[in-house]
Amino acid sequence: MTAPASRVPDMLWYGWGVPDRQIHLPDSVTALLGQALGVHPSPPRAEPDVRLAESALPPDAAGALAAVVGAGHVRTGDDVRLLHSGGKSTIDLLRRRRDHPVLDAPDAVVLPADHAQVLAVLAACARHGVAVVPFGGGTSVVGGVEPARGRFAAVITLDLRRLDRLIAVDAESATATLQPGLKAPEAESLLADHGLTLGHYPQSFEHATIGGFAATRSSGQSSAGYGRFDDLVVALRVATPAGELCLGRAPASAAGPDLRQLFLGSEGAFGVITEVTVRVRPVPPTQLDEAWWFPDFGAGATALRRLAQADALPAIARLSDEAETAVNAALSGPAGAPPGGPAAAPAVPAGGTLAITGYEGTAEAVAARRSAATAILAGAGGMPLPEPAAAGWRAGRFAAPYLRDGLLDAGALVETLETATSWSALPALYAAVRAAVTGTLTGQGTPPLVLCHISHVYPTGASLYFTVVAAVAADPIAQWQATKRAAGDAITSHGATISHHHAVGTDHRGWMTAEVGDLGVAVLRAVKATVDPAGILNPGKLLPPEP
Amino acid sequence: MTAPASRVPDMLWYGWGVPDRQIHLPDSVTALLGQALGVHPSPPRAEPDVRLAESALPPDAAGALAAVVGAGHVRTGDDVRLLHSGGKSTIDLLRRRRDHPVLDAPDAVVLPADHAQVLAVLAACARHGVAVVPFGGGTSVVGGVEPARGRFAAVITLDLRRLDRLIAVDAESATATLQPGLKAPEAESLLADHGLTLGHYPQSFEHATIGGFAATRSSGQSSAGYGRFDDLVVALRVATPAGELCLGRAPASAAGPDLRQLFLGSEGAFGVITEVTVRVRPVPPTQLDEAWWFPDFGAGATALRRLAQADALPAIARLSDEAETAVNAALSGPAGAPPGGPAAAPAVPAGGTLAITGYEGTAEAVAARRSAATAILAGAGGMPLPEPAAAGWRAGRFAAPYLRDGLLDAGALVETLETATSWSALPALYAAVRAAVTGTLTGQGTPPLVLCHISHVYPTGASLYFTVVAAVAADPIAQWQATKRAAGDAITSHGATISHHHAVGTDHRGWMTAEVGDLGVAVLRAVKATVDPAGILNPGKLLPPEP
Repeated sequence: MTAPASRVPDMLWYGWGVPDRQIHLPDSVTALLGQALGVHPSPPRAEPDVRLAESALPPDAAGALAAVVGAGHVRTGDDVRLLHSGGKSTIDLLRRRRDHPVLDAPDAVVLPADHAQVLAVLAACARHGVAVVPFGGGTSVVGGVEPARGRFAAVITLDLRRLDRLIAVDAESATATLQPGLKAPEAESLLADHGLTLGHYPQSFEHATIGGFAATRSSGQSSAGYGRFDDLVVALRVATPAGELCLGRAPASAAGPDLRQLFLGSEGAFGVITEVTVRVRPVPPTQLDEAWWFPDFGAGATALRRLAQADALPAIARLSDEAETAVNAALSGPAGAPPGGPAAAPAVPAGGTLAITGYEGTAEAVAARRSAATAILAGAGGMPLPEPAAAGWRAGRFAAPYLRDGLLDAGALVETLETATSWSALPALYAAVRAAVTGTLTGQGTPPLVLCHISHVYPTGASLYFTVVAAVAADPIAQWQATKRAAGDAITSHGATISHHHAVGTDHRGWMTAEVGDLGVAVLRAVKATVDPAGILNPGKLLPPEP
Repeated sequence: MTAPASRVPDMLWYGWGVPDRQIHLPDSVTALLGQALGVHPSPPRAEPDVRLAESALPPDAAGALAAVVGAGHVRTGDDVRLLHSGGKSTIDLLRRRRDHPVLDAPDAVVLPADHAQVLAVLAACARHGVAVVPFGGGTSVVGGVEPARGRFAAVITLDLRRLDRLIAVDAESATATLQPGLKAPEAESLLADHGLTLGHYPQSFEHATIGGFAATRSSGQSSAGYGRFDDLVVALRVATPAGELCLGRAPASAAGPDLRQLFLGSEGAFGVITEVTVRVRPVPPTQLDEAWWFPDFGAGATALRRLAQADALPAIARLSDEAETAVNAALSGPAGAPPGGPAAAPAVPAGGTLAITGYEGTAEAVAARRSAATAILAGAGGMPLPEPAAAGWRAGRFAAPYLRDGLLDAGALVETLETATSWSALPALYAAVRAAVTGTLTGQGTPPLVLCHISHVYPTGASLYFTVVAAVAADPIAQWQATKRAAGDAITSHGATISHHHAVGTDHRGWMTAEVGDLGVAVLRAVKATVDPAGILNPGKLLPPEP
């Protein structure tokens, strides 16, 4: 059992990340936002003057929890509760940025030390009728860590930061067993001591946790090479109010349904993941990023599809549409150092779309894979671009959430949403979501800029990731909720999934019946009733409201 | 919707496959069996003089079923019922080979035409209290199609042979939608008309169905290149007594738990799979098999592990242990034409172990993959063998079940069992299963020959597939049951899975609590109660007996 040498700091409660990385948009960009979208600069941001509802944790419950984790690990101070008052969706941030906000917060933040304490905390909460919100990095953008109490009088947030160990490395089997509270950079640092990597780099990488990756079916920027997080999971240990589960006894099994797949994506509503055994790989000695230009989004998508179907994908394969390509080119200064965002291209021909490809592995493997991929990309009409284009993407690849804060500061509404479907259905889905978002926001008097990229590519289909920017309306929360509703309806009515990697949380639960049908929802409820008979786990997430 | 041009014939009821492919062991082999294992030749086989319990289907149930599928598709004749009296485990065959056997059989065999009829049959059976055994190819070797009636007065077998269409091909998305009653060769033939293949070739290929592959998490001989069947499934349509489920809206999703993974491996106990959408690939223009010799099983396993961990696996990668290598060498005549079995090697050096590798794809892809793999195999101490060794394996790769019939005819007990675990745990598991099998059979006065191969290879571990041959004892069914019990206990006590690709059925259900724990079993029961409230679906399979 090894703990990380240093810990990742907590994020700002009213924005993303840490203070010294905050982005202030250059005047040229704010001027452009004004011209293009009618964004009116807002007054400079100060830390909001927040108030929290008082802690309502009954004393007997508090005592029972303290008996499990120690009194010092049941935290009821406003500072700690504020840090657990929700996730990082734009709506979360808008709520916190209001004048004198009054925020929902958990009645206590409880910090268990290990699996046994998690089990005991869940048992105590079930006994005392206290809702439990499992909490990793707090990076959810779908309301997944909302401190909702459901039908209970009190709610605690179960912060897993003390479960922060690398439990075991099995180098021969290429697996590592990790505790859920490890932040991704901490896990990578511990694995690097063994020459190993998970290779899982979602945009939330700098603050997200191992447990969160598993509970939300995270997908990283190198998913084409390393697989989605759920692909990497060999075994899970889960604590539930009804006891524990140890799932995954082999690299593959025909011993009935794969129950790991019920807890991957269970978002804290079925249990608390306390150990994750994952496939690991040697730290790649070689890494090579390249940028490619395609005349249009369709041509670039065809190139990515051919790569996937030829089993010739680079580790990273992504493609911005025309709008995103143009905006990123405009955002990147003449020095080619962009403030962030999905892609940046200082030397892109006017028009067209930009793809980023990234190769990782031994020098020989990279050379072989690059050679095969290059032939396919060029054959599909791609044109390789000079190096800075790809370097710009890598430099800014975790910066988009900081850019969002800067845009919110500048008086813009900005949010993302994502989905996935089969290749043949992708063009219609793309058009439908753009139309829904554009129509709804234009109807509210705030015509948007809608950017899109393909970030995850499979032989049978791909994801679409949309970024929406508009001027804020009088009620920006209602403004976005209406937009999101239209986008979600467009997604589900086109047969696509309501989330490729953001998960369900509170924001997508209304579409779960469209996603899995009435009987699918009934199955999910039956599973929950078995592992969480009192219904204390993460109320209001994952499952649609009871009819 | 396209139906196959011709149908695969039914199998012999008391053995595997079709009459003209039956194998009669040469006298040299029977003599060897006598010398080595004390096998006494039994009298020549004649078709057993069988009797079935009479059909007990109540007339009102029969009428309700006839109203759904038409009277001609509710079959109660002994010939049809006999063909559905169970699967193809050695115990199944021993039961049928007894003198004047009296066999359990379904009270009727019902043949629905489509999804709607399956739903209606399930509803009718739930209403009338009739158990339902879904039936594809009838190739189960774990009692998965046993006509058990559970607590019901009657049981029907739901034979899905009329759901035999290729519903759709989406060439752009590289997927095809198939009905479950298609036999694998029929499905391959329909896909070949589009230049496509599933690439799924388990040993049961010639008689197994698409629905069965999904319901049992089948794994084919080319799994290293094409993936297990569950990896290939993009979407499922399932009929249950509680209604239907359509699962799978994208190549990947974070919209909660993956419910497809509850129905893959559900073995007819949760519903009837009526449509399967799978990834397909172009028929490979190039196919190349090779054989490699390794000084011992450990060295060969290390080579396969390195291939998997370097993402350099051929489409086929398998390795026989010393015993299996020697037996296959002995079985293959001087002409190099073996009667079947997992591997055959006319030109293997004495001692050591034989691996088979197979490459598939474009000529360039095969060349590149072969070059990378060859370096790893040679680097791990492997020695390439002349071509006939691999050709022998391919020629006999579906023949092992015929060889089993021949061995049973010759008076031998022969059966297989399989498992999987991590690479680091593989040597101890191998030793433990061998010891359990050898100890149990030796203790019964019938010391066995135990052969093993690795047939499915992953970065984090591999499967072990054991073949056991011994002289029959007075009660061969009890003889094998004791052996199987010892092997299963060794497998689960070593942390391995009770089945890598044979599934659970009746034979493995006793180990399901070891596999997923009490709470895992409770979750499975809750799912079943939701989709099958009356409990009519495949009684006695998958779930352990109620405590």
